[in-house]
Amino acid sequence: MSGPHLAVAAARSAVSSATADLPTGSLVLVACSGGTDSLALASAAAFVARRGELRAGAVVVDHGLQTGSDEVAERAAATCRRLGLAPVLVVRVAVDAAGGPEAAARSARYAALEEAASREGAAAVLLGHTLDDQAETVLLGLARGSGARSLAGMPAARGALRRPILGLRRADTAAACEAQGLVPWHDPTNAGRPDDPLRSRLRAEVMPLLDRVLGPGVPEALTRTAEQLAEDAAALDALAADLLATARRAADASRSADPRRAADEGVDLDVGVLAGALTAVRRRALRAAAVAAGSPAGSMHRVHVLALDALVADWHGQGAVALPGGLAGGRAYGTLVIGPPRSSSASSKGADDEGGSPIEHTNEE
Amino acid sequence: MSGPHLAVAAARSAVSSATADLPTGSLVLVACSGGTDSLALASAAAFVARRGELRAGAVVVDHGLQTGSDEVAERAAATCRRLGLAPVLVVRVAVDAAGGPEAAARSARYAALEEAASREGAAAVLLGHTLDDQAETVLLGLARGSGARSLAGMPAARGALRRPILGLRRADTAAACEAQGLVPWHDPTNAGRPDDPLRSRLRAEVMPLLDRVLGPGVPEALTRTAEQLAEDAAALDALAADLLATARRAADASRSADPRRAADEGVDLDVGVLAGALTAVRRRALRAAAVAAGSPAGSMHRVHVLALDALVADWHGQGAVALPGGLAGGRAYGTLVIGPPRSSSASSKGADDEGGSPIEHTNEE
Repeated sequence: MSGPHLAVAAARSAVSSATADLPTGSLVLVACSGGTDSLALASAAAFVARRGELRAGAVVVDHGLQTGSDEVAERAAATCRRLGLAPVLVVRVAVDAAGGPEAAARSARYAALEEAASREGAAAVLLGHTLDDQAETVLLGLARGSGARSLAGMPAARGALRRPILGLRRADTAAACEAQGLVPWHDPTNAGRPDDPLRSRLRAEVMPLLDRVLGPGVPEALTRTAEQLAEDAAALDALAADLLATARRAADASRSADPRRAADEGVDLDVGVLAGALTAVRRRALRAAAVAAGSPAGSMHRVHVLALDALVADWHGQGAVALPGGLAGGRAYGTLVIGPPRSSSASSKGADDEGGSPIEHTNEE
Repeated sequence: MSGPHLAVAAARSAVSSATADLPTGSLVLVACSGGTDSLALASAAAFVARRGELRAGAVVVDHGLQTGSDEVAERAAATCRRLGLAPVLVVRVAVDAAGGPEAAARSARYAALEEAASREGAAAVLLGHTLDDQAETVLLGLARGSGARSLAGMPAARGALRRPILGLRRADTAAACEAQGLVPWHDPTNAGRPDDPLRSRLRAEVMPLLDRVLGPGVPEALTRTAEQLAEDAAALDALAADLLATARRAADASRSADPRRAADEGVDLDVGVLAGALTAVRRRALRAAAVAAGSPAGSMHRVHVLALDALVADWHGQGAVALPGGLAGGRAYGTLVIGPPRSSSASSKGADDEGGSPIEHTNEE
């Protein structure tokens, strides 16, 4: 036999690539639950550290959601120490129930990981999400139906967090553990780190059916899709940010030239600039403008964006559009104005003193 | 009771909107199989025609794939005539088996529909695809994993073909038929118009499971996704086409200024222009360039695009990249050259006489 098991080699190579940009000797922390994926990752990181490329430690998060969770955490920590990782930290987090137990546990976990990294001076935290996790995330995003960003899955890197083994299957991490005699901890109740129940059912029921119906390769196809859509979203978001900035500058310039219009709270956009843009870019810019003006991002649905867009691209004198967060978008003197509603309370507001309602209800062009 | 059944009204309104841009009195042809969806569509089109907005006829395609298919077609045609549609044509098509029976039947069907439209001077052919069909198409595209375009589903309009009832559920067309006493033809063997077997299993097994696991609304989420991704793909394709044209012009300009480089078959692109573009746009442009140079579109996979892209964005002197269709992409004098492979046959090719292999194998910048 020559060299390590293929899955072991794949995990080591993945960690090495994902950390290649870090200066030699940097500290990385593996987020380890003791489960199959993070155990395989911890072992690979320990190997890369032994080779001298970096220093590898671990963080074990104890969510404290059931009695005995502290023992599970200590067990995972002991395994990490046996693998040669140092330092190995056990962090107990307080989970409040806002947004559901899974969301709360996830937020608490990520906050604890980033805090540990900062405290230890770590350059990165490595997360053990696999290709299968990514495929499930894409399917969950698909069910939300909110476009490329929700289908783009988990990023390979964001901030201090990195996901080196997004290209490995769950079967690979299991094989890597087995080949190295590592025994993962399977939480029978899943209560130690509550998984999204939707995700669990996707894993247990939907993915196997898709595999039977559409043939093998669905998880890979889903992650390929995620990768391309993340790229698309990045490009379109960048173009939309440019468009938004240009449209705001143009509106500011025309406002200062027009004594009837006064500076106001909210966001003003030049309709001419917006009208010349590509539809997908313009709609993203309008969404971003509403969020910048104060509409909660999670409540800005496509129907709001389309109504705003119609003020630009299908203008026939329609009235102001109601937006989440009690805002409104309307068209006035060639400018799209997104902010607090103005027409009904115009007489009580100083900013409107100069010229009646600035929201036009007649055909402008 | 006031007015028609909701589903009947929705179908009528959908046909009216989808044909609103056609001059009054235009002829539209409904593609009718006699099944639930196309029967509901035919009835709605007949109503809109009676109102005088347009003239509505029908085309029934007989695929001739089983004995008795001619009777099924005549039965559907008779129903269309009873609905008041005129003209009603029955077109028999020859299906060859290239690409599988479903793909062959689909190609033959669309060709027959477009030919019938052209022969009758019809402004549009209306197809009875519903929201459920669209959701299945998106899932099938997801399993292919080839990015936004494959997830964008069926367009609401392309060429003469229009899909007015993409916003209606299959349950709506069934309700519309029942409310009007129309009896759809259910082909028990599905052999008259062979459905994609994957699609049939998605419909029978996957969609109901997604509904149970993720909750109702999955088909709507899938079609919302399709709509946004179609928008994204249109914007990115337009930007990529611009980039491709600019990069080709710049390469042509530098070629005519450099006596070592000769015009050749294939596509030349200026690396500097490409390098300044957004990743998603550049990769689409590279894909389009390879297809323009002769690589079959269906065989250009992401791995090829990424290898080409590395010649631009991750250049470290690597050699030429093999592309489908026996082509190669290489970097030479600040130009990306996509065409027939040149290095191994350089001595036998006139275009390379002036200066040895034009493919650089050393670090250029």
